[in-house]
Amino acid sequence: MADDSIAATPEPPYYAAIFTSVRTPGDDGYGAMAERMLKMAAEQPGYLGVESARDGVGITVSYWRSLEDIANWKRVAEHLEAQRTGRAKWYASFKTRIAKVERDYGFDR
Amino acid sequence: MADDSIAATPEPPYYAAIFTSVRTPGDDGYGAMAERMLKMAAEQPGYLGVESARDGVGITVSYWRSLEDIANWKRVAEHLEAQRTGRAKWYASFKTRIAKVERDYGFDR
Repeated sequence: MADDSIAATPEPPYYAAIFTSVRTPGDDGYGAMAERMLKMAAEQPGYLGVESARDGVGITVSYWRSLEDIANWKRVAEHLEAQRTGRAKWYASFKTRIAKVERDYGFDR
Repeated sequence: MADDSIAATPEPPYYAAIFTSVRTPGDDGYGAMAERMLKMAAEQPGYLGVESARDGVGITVSYWRSLEDIANWKRVAEHLEAQRTGRAKWYASFKTRIAKVERDYGFDR
């Protein structure tokens, strides 16, 4: 689950699903769904970690071993239902970008 | 600049610099620098847009035409100074991931 920390991903290459969204007003079940989806994602094969923040726009980046792992997670039944409800009411707009992480570097105090 | 909206990126492929960070306590010049860097990034060759949110962890995803454009922006003098000060005091930890966006899809109400 997202825990306000930087995902401990392995050496590249691996894949990122960058999900950026703008919410409609009100919660309407969104918070519980978002928490549930983060928990479910973490249980999927090939999951490597997630980072998430909302502040006007919401950005959730999940990291995966392969494109197939991302495609499989997209097809999980409860996730499909969340995607449908997202289009129906939770999101004013969103964009998902599938990307191959080619290198990384960082810093830890 | 980041304006709480989803970046209007072109058709893939293009590149993303996913910068995730955890701040040290206090502002200490951070806010002004962050605003200045978003403004400067938007003036660089190959810049395609940015999305940014902070909420515990901070995530800034900037989008670029090519890896060379990202490398050039990393070397801009004022940006180098921001990177140095970030390591010296603003960030408890950070990770930058360079990724090739291979496909995208979205929704706009």
